[in-house]
Amino acid sequence: MILAKVEGSVVATKKHGKITGNKLLLVRPFTADSPEAGALRAGGSTLVAVDQIGAGEGEMVLVAQGSSARLGMSDKDSPVDAVVVGIVDTVDIGKKLVYRASA
Amino acid sequence: MILAKVEGSVVATKKHGKITGNKLLLVRPFTADSPEAGALRAGGSTLVAVDQIGAGEGEMVLVAQGSSARLGMSDKDSPVDAVVVGIVDTVDIGKKLVYRASA
Amino acid sequence: MILAKVEGSVVATKKHGKITGNKLLLVRPFTADSPEAGALRAGGSTLVAVDQIGAGEGEMVLVAQGSSARLGMSDKDSPVDAVVVGIVDTVDIGKKLVYRASA
Amino acid sequence: MILAKVEGSVVATKKHGKITGNKLLLVRPFTADSPEAGALRAGGSTLVAVDQIGAGEGEMVLVAQGSSARLGMSDKDSPVDAVVVGIVDTVDIGKKLVYRASA
Amino acid sequence: MILAKVEGSVVATKKHGKITGNKLLLVRPFTADSPEAGALRAGGSTLVAVDQIGAGEGEMVLVAQGSSARLGMSDKDSPVDAVVVGIVDTVDIGKKLVYRASA
Repeated sequence: MILAKVEGSVVATKKHGKITGNKLLLVRPFTADSPEAGALRAGGSTLVAVDQIGAGEGEMVLVAQGSSARLGMSDKDSPVDAVVVGIVDTVDIGKKLVYRASA
Repeated sequence: MILAKVEGSVVATKKHGKITGNKLLLVRPFTADSPEAGALRAGGSTLVAVDQIGAGEGEMVLVAQGSSARLGMSDKDSPVDAVVVGIVDTVDIGKKLVYRASA
Repeated sequence: MILAKVEGSVVATKKHGKITGNKLLLVRPFTADSPEAGALRAGGSTLVAVDQIGAGEGEMVLVAQGSSARLGMSDKDSPVDAVVVGIVDTVDIGKKLVYRASA
Repeated sequence: MILAKVEGSVVATKKHGKITGNKLLLVRPFTADSPEAGALRAGGSTLVAVDQIGAGEGEMVLVAQGSSARLGMSDKDSPVDAVVVGIVDTVDIGKKLVYRASA
Repeated sequence: MILAKVEGSVVATKKHGKITGNKLLLVRPFTADSPEAGALRAGGSTLVAVDQIGAGEGEMVLVAQGSSARLGMSDKDSPVDAVVVGIVDTVDIGKKLVYRASA
């Protein structure tokens, strides 16, 4: 999975029937440059993931991609390749906290 | 999924039987450089996606890739790895509108 | 799918039983830099795709990758992740022809 | 599979039911620049993999990705695309030892 | 599939049960920069592939990735995403031989 931050949303009225009723989030992958990095770094591009867990803007989430994403959907035959499967509370590197969700 | 703009089309008379009858679109991925970006940015490369939803040139679409793409096809056993599953109306980052389909 | 040009061939006498009898093509991905590009651009790397359609050297083809590639094979359980599923006649960007197969 | 070092961990209280009870590791891909390289090189980004084997921080592991990752889970329908499937003892290039787990 | 050279091996005593008994090879992808290139070029990174065909160090092989890799295994439910499916004898670009296995 990847860490990604929810930055926005996508609206598509005309879409495949099995996607209807799902919120489409614009998410940005985050990663750690090195073990010494004091924080996660924002990636320079975005993707669109289906929300099935109630993630909101500004939250760091776990995104599963590929065929595994479909298993995160209520309908497992959805033509969907990226799904939010968790909302991140904390990320630690070694004993150092590099991310904590704001309360 | 990725955001991508329909830029053109591909004609292939000789092709796998299960692809016959489907429109092949040349699409270009779009992404947001940063949350502060005022607009989506065009990627520097293109791919070919099957249209199953009636997307036209110049439209921003949602493309599903990999095995999930096949589930967007009427025949789910098609040897197809990229399918248009939605036509995008708007993309928001935070409270800012970064894309709106022209009426 | 990706656009790719057939540039060569690979011979592997010792191989998995289910690949035996299939032609292995060395193909190079092609893409369009921008909508204004007057032609497709050759990528800087190559991959190996199974031919199931009779593609020849110099031809531009459509390559399906991943699990979808297997569905382009006569035996769908082949350990194959890239297959030629079409031979390209033309590619248009907007009203501009950027590729046409030589007659 | 890829070689990756376990650098940290991710906590996500709110997550898809099938992921619950699994440890989420932050791992960094490692690779060899050239056959002459005397050691593996750390990559500049990280991903999140599920641990099913008891890997600890600082260990070099094998990570399987994509749909194959699910087969490394006790529940094969988990929406998971990266799983630790082995703990690496040694890596050799030619006759040269480039990695050995500390005892 | 990709062309890759076997450069080394990985030992992992503690691993997923279904991988046990398989040789793990460190392989480096090779590619052709251009049709005019006189030889294949070594990539700057490595991955780990399961050997099911008896490949040895220094040999150029065909590696299948993703779910297709599993179909190259005797046990198709193995959590494995890269498998050697062939040993390359020759690679030709146009009429030019760019690789030949040493006898």
